[in-house]
Amino acid sequence: MMSRNSRYTILVHGGTVSGPEAVTEDRLHFIKYVVETGRQRLAAGAAALDAVVEAIVSMEDSGLFDAGKGSYFNRDGFVENDAALADGHTGRAGAAALLRRLKNPIRAARLVMERTDHVMLAGATGEQVLIDLGAELITNPSAYFTPTTTASVMPDLSGTVGAVALDTDGRLAAATSTGGTRHKLPGRVSDSAIIGAGTFANRSCAVSATGKGEYFIRRSAAADIALRAAYAGMSLQQSADYVVRELIGRQDSAMGAVIALGLDGKPVISANGYGVLHGHAADTAGVCTGARIAT
Amino acid sequence: MMSRNSRYTILVHGGTVSGPEAVTEDRLHFIKYVVETGRQRLAAGAAALDAVVEAIVSMEDSGLFDAGKGSYFNRDGFVENDAALADGHTGRAGAAALLRRLKNPIRAARLVMERTDHVMLAGATGEQVLIDLGAELITNPSAYFTPTTTASVMPDLSGTVGAVALDTDGRLAAATSTGGTRHKLPGRVSDSAIIGAGTFANRSCAVSATGKGEYFIRRSAAADIALRAAYAGMSLQQSADYVVRELIGRQDSAMGAVIALGLDGKPVISANGYGVLHGHAADTAGVCTGARIAT
Repeated sequence: MMSRNSRYTILVHGGTVSGPEAVTEDRLHFIKYVVETGRQRLAAGAAALDAVVEAIVSMEDSGLFDAGKGSYFNRDGFVENDAALADGHTGRAGAAALLRRLKNPIRAARLVMERTDHVMLAGATGEQVLIDLGAELITNPSAYFTPTTTASVMPDLSGTVGAVALDTDGRLAAATSTGGTRHKLPGRVSDSAIIGAGTFANRSCAVSATGKGEYFIRRSAAADIALRAAYAGMSLQQSADYVVRELIGRQDSAMGAVIALGLDGKPVISANGYGVLHGHAADTAGVCTGARIAT
Repeated sequence: MMSRNSRYTILVHGGTVSGPEAVTEDRLHFIKYVVETGRQRLAAGAAALDAVVEAIVSMEDSGLFDAGKGSYFNRDGFVENDAALADGHTGRAGAAALLRRLKNPIRAARLVMERTDHVMLAGATGEQVLIDLGAELITNPSAYFTPTTTASVMPDLSGTVGAVALDTDGRLAAATSTGGTRHKLPGRVSDSAIIGAGTFANRSCAVSATGKGEYFIRRSAAADIALRAAYAGMSLQQSADYVVRELIGRQDSAMGAVIALGLDGKPVISANGYGVLHGHAADTAGVCTGARIAT
């Protein structure tokens, strides 16, 4: 029996996890809420792009992940946030990096895509342009960003957040947001903000990654997953598994995971370590959340 | 008769050109000097990575291109420089973006690769880290960067510079440097600084792009050229032509060009407009420079 394709699906991740101790109930519950809300939006006809942006905004605001409010501090004790999104249907994309004063980095990335001729703005000069375009400021960054329980208790947890969605019009979108690695150097740009590395979408698939971002940049991992599936006759799941497990995992010895969706709406999740916090919801199935990937 | 593969090759570009009026003798002569010098270095056993970095340093210092000293000013009247390099043999890469005070952006990108755990540093905070690592400062940026003849006389000229090389040990490397588009928004990051967009290398090929960078970012163009050749049974020239002419050119209506090298050392040049300033030299042939591509 062939399984029916999903008419809409949302799939989110909340970062790789190195072991069961990092799979906390509050995060899994929050992911469940995010994907259930995303499903309702998609059922009501929302665009995939809107669904992934709203999912990421919730996770940025939650303080539960290494993104937005919950971001890790860098070596010098301040937060620099990165985010990107890609609209597979139009081929457009937006990215914002090294933000220090904006509440929702993913909305900043959307401003870049929709209100400028550019794909990526970064640094203090880019942030000022985004503020001039109306990005929401954090009134008091030093009160907003506080060392999180996450950061002190679970130093290995990479809590980057990402979302991919397929909407009822067959459009795909991807979005990713992160505070980057703990104690990173000031000015370090993560793969999350780099189209083709941690975030990618075209008319056939949407991809969001998490893990040791430097390896995803070197290998253009998100683009590789999409293009390998397109050119090498692999399924999207096979392509994701090859890049995440064989290249990033075995060859690079680096932890990583991705989520992806193709036009069939079937959730693709691949991780090379203990797993990745994730959840998904579609018109064909209930809400599913977890951390380990059944293989 | 089969042509003998080159044991070493260097291929550089100096940006797309919209017509014959942009093909100036001073630029072509300088490119000839750069590739001749590069050939001598490679003949003496230099690594591909060193050859491309030194080629780019010369072009940054020349003031003849939109990179380093000759960079375009942005909307607010200052220079923000971007550069990246990729070492195909090791898989390592480095990128630096939005530099305002460093003499050679490509050396800054190399510092990121060799002296940090990261791939990309950007903005004022990243530049400070690079200064702390010993990057050479411009003493007086407002005297060093002056509005160039290029910018005023030829507004459409994109003079991004790039180099790819194959060395006698069979290693490939790519490097790209740019001042970005004229009157760009402050904080705009170009494809040149994004691994997989304007700069890419692996064990099979090395790619450097120029043109309307936003389209190269959206399509992960440099990675697409490399991966399409690897997976889709195309030659590197066919893959470059498809991405540059069909995708960037016809579908996106954007001007662009790439240079690339595979392990056979055969120069791959593709452009969708009038052409791209370029030059190459190898052990098997003399120094060749030009702007239009014979097709």
